Amino acid sequence: MSKADTHTARTDLRVELGERGYDIVIARGLIEDPSAYAGAIRGQRVLIVSNDTVAPLYARAVEHALSAEHEVDTLVLPDGEQYKTLATLDTIYDRLLENGYGRDATIVALGGGVVGDIAGFAAASYQRGIDFVQLPTTLLAQVDSSVGGKTGVNHRLGKNMIGAFHQPTRVLADVAVLDSLPAREFAAGMAEVIKYGLIRDRPFLDWLDTNMAAINARDADALIEVIRRSCANKAEVVAADEREAGQRALLNLGHTYGHALEAELGYGQWLHGEAVAAGMCMAADTAQRLGWLDTDQCAHIERIIAAANLPIAPPRELDSARIRSLMARDKKVAAGTLRLVLMRDIGDAVVTRDYGNALDATLKRYFAK
Amino acid sequence: MSKADTHTARTDLRVELGERGYDIVIARGLIEDPSAYAGAIRGQRVLIVSNDTVAPLYARAVEHALSAEHEVDTLVLPDGEQYKTLATLDTIYDRLLENGYGRDATIVALGGGVVGDIAGFAAASYQRGIDFVQLPTTLLAQVDSSVGGKTGVNHRLGKNMIGAFHQPTRVLADVAVLDSLPAREFAAGMAEVIKYGLIRDRPFLDWLDTNMAAINARDADALIEVIRRSCANKAEVVAADEREAGQRALLNLGHTYGHALEAELGYGQWLHGEAVAAGMCMAADTAQRLGWLDTDQCAHIERIIAAANLPIAPPRELDSARIRSLMARDKKVAAGTLRLVLMRDIGDAVVTRDYGNALDATLKRYFAK
Repeated sequence: MSKADTHTARTDLRVELGERGYDIVIARGLIEDPSAYAGAIRGQRVLIVSNDTVAPLYARAVEHALSAEHEVDTLVLPDGEQYKTLATLDTIYDRLLENGYGRDATIVALGGGVVGDIAGFAAASYQRGIDFVQLPTTLLAQVDSSVGGKTGVNHRLGKNMIGAFHQPTRVLADVAVLDSLPAREFAAGMAEVIKYGLIRDRPFLDWLDTNMAAINARDADALIEVIRRSCANKAEVVAADEREAGQRALLNLGHTYGHALEAELGYGQWLHGEAVAAGMCMAADTAQRLGWLDTDQCAHIERIIAAANLPIAPPRELDSARIRSLMARDKKVAAGTLRLVLMRDIGDAVVTRDYGNALDATLKRYFAK
Repeated sequence: MSKADTHTARTDLRVELGERGYDIVIARGLIEDPSAYAGAIRGQRVLIVSNDTVAPLYARAVEHALSAEHEVDTLVLPDGEQYKTLATLDTIYDRLLENGYGRDATIVALGGGVVGDIAGFAAASYQRGIDFVQLPTTLLAQVDSSVGGKTGVNHRLGKNMIGAFHQPTRVLADVAVLDSLPAREFAAGMAEVIKYGLIRDRPFLDWLDTNMAAINARDADALIEVIRRSCANKAEVVAADEREAGQRALLNLGHTYGHALEAELGYGQWLHGEAVAAGMCMAADTAQRLGWLDTDQCAHIERIIAAANLPIAPPRELDSARIRSLMARDKKVAAGTLRLVLMRDIGDAVVTRDYGNALDATLKRYFAK
C-alpha cells in the first residue's frame, strides 16, 4: 500500500464513555500512517493480532508504521469463525507470556469481526486488562464492531457466550483496506449500514439512496460518510440504552428473521448480512400487514437493499414452521413471547409483541410450505 | 451444620464502589441462613461452584438455604491451585450452557481463594458478565479475596495472568466454616491479618496482640472483628489506590521476600501465608538496618507472628544469592530497581528503593550461604 498520498478526507468521531471514551478515526491510508496511532499506545510493546487472510496484505504496513516508536511482534491466527474459541485465545496468551509482555503492552487487532472479538477479549483478560487498538478490515467490522465494546469467543454450545465489555483506546477505520474486500462481504456490511437508516435515521437512508453507486464503486469520501454515520448512530443507540433499556434491541432489526434463516440454511451458506437483508424485507412485510408501512415504503426498502447487491427475500423452499420455531429460540423471547423489531415508519423502529397473526402471514408469503 | 442459633454478632461492611458497591456480611451461621442471601440474587437460577473438599461439608446447607427462592445446581471442581486453569473454567461454561443459564443467573462461589478466583472469572466472562456471590471458606479468602474484585486463572507461564476485575453482589463471611479449617491454613490466613496491622493500623495490631488466644481458639466474636478490620483496611487501601497510585503496593509487605521463598522451596511446600510471615520478619530486619525500626519493635513483630503459629524466619539452608535473584524477578521491580515495602514504624509502611545494602545484610543474616 502506498496510498497515504491519496488522503481525501479524515473524520474523527468521539465515542463518549467518560474516561473510557475513544476516537474512531476514519480516512484512507490510516493504518500505514504512524501519526494515526499517536497517543493511543501508552507503552513500548505492541502485539499485532491478525489472521492468515489479512496479515499477508496489511501486517507489514502496520508493523512499519509502529516500529519507529514501538517494539512490534505479530501473531497470525487461522481465519474463520470456527477458530473463535478459547483454544485460539490461549495461543494469544501464550505469545504474550512467552515474550514477557507486561500490563503496559497494547494489542492491535488487525482484521474483521472475529479478530476484533478474540483479540479484544485477550486484551480484556490478559493480566486483568491491557489496552487495545482496533484496525477493522471489513466494512461490517468498521460499522458494527467499532462501537459497543463487545469482545469474546464462541463456545460449542453457543456463539459469543464467553466475553467481556472492553473499550479500545482507538479505532482506525481505514477505507483503503476495503479495496481488497470481496464483493459479497462488502454487500453484507452494507446490510447493517442500511439498517441504521431504517431504524432511526431517515436522512441517512435518503443519502444512501442517492449515493449507492459511489458506495458500490468504493469511493473513499462516500465510504467515510457511510462509516461515520453508521458509527454515530450505533454510538447514540448504545449510549441511550444506558438510560432507556431496550434501545439497543433496535439494532436487531431483521436479525430475528435473519438468525433463523442462517440456522436453517446452515451457518456459512449465507453471510450474516445477507440473512439480515432478507430479514429486514420480511420485517417490512410484517409491518405492512399491521398497517405501519404502505406498499410504496416496502418497495422502497427492497429497492435500496437490492441496490446494495443484497437479497430481498429468503429461499422459497425453506419450511415456514421450522423458521417460526427457530425464531422463537431467539434471545429476544422475553417471558415466553417472541418480540420483534418492526418499523412504524421508515427511520422509526420499535420493539413489539403486538403483531398478532402478521408474522405468520409473512412466513406464509415467503415460503412455499 | 445447625449453628444458626448460636449467632453471636453480625457485622455488615459496605464496600463503596458506586453502583458496583456491595456488602460483606460477617457472622456465624450465615451460609445456611436464607435471609443472608436476600437481595443479592436477582434471577431465579443459581449455580453453586465449589470444590471436592468443601462441597461435602457445606454444599447441602447452601443448597437448602437457596432452594426456597431459587432453582439451584452445584458444580464440584477438583480442589487445588493446579486446577485453576482455562480448562477448569471451561467446565463451568459447559455446565452453564448445558443447562441454559441466562444473563440473570448467579454464580455462588463456595470455597477458598482458588474457587473464588475461578468462579468469579466465570461470572465475569459468561455472556459478558453475570452476578456472583462469594462464600469464602478459608480465613485467607475471607480477609483477602473479599475485597478488590480480582478474579482469574493461572497460565502455565504465570500465576493469575488471565482474569478480570469483577465485583461480587455480596460476600458472606461465615466464621462457622472456619471450624473445619486445618490449623496450618488458619495460621496462614492470620499472616495477612497481621499484615494490615503492620502496614497501616497500629490499634488493630495491639488488639490482635491482646486477643490472640481467643482468635486461635476460633472464638466467633474475635473472628468477626478480625475479618471486619482486615476487610475495612483492604477496602480503604484499594479505594485510596484509585486516587494515589501505589497505595495498593503496601499490601505486598513481606510478599517480595515471601514469593522468593515460595519459589525456592517449591510451591506448595510452604503455604503462601507462612512465606509471607517469614518475609515480614525479614522486612522488619531490613527496616531495622535502615534505622526505621528498633530492636524492641522487631522483637514485638516476631512475637505476634509466632503467637499466630507462623514461622518468623525462612529455612537457613537456602542460598541467599538465589533468593536475591528471585526477588529481582518480582513484579515490583520498576525501571530495573527492586522496590521493597518496608515499615518506617509499626503500622506505617512505605514503598522504597532507598534501602542501600540493608537488603543484602538481611539475606546474609538469615541464610547460611
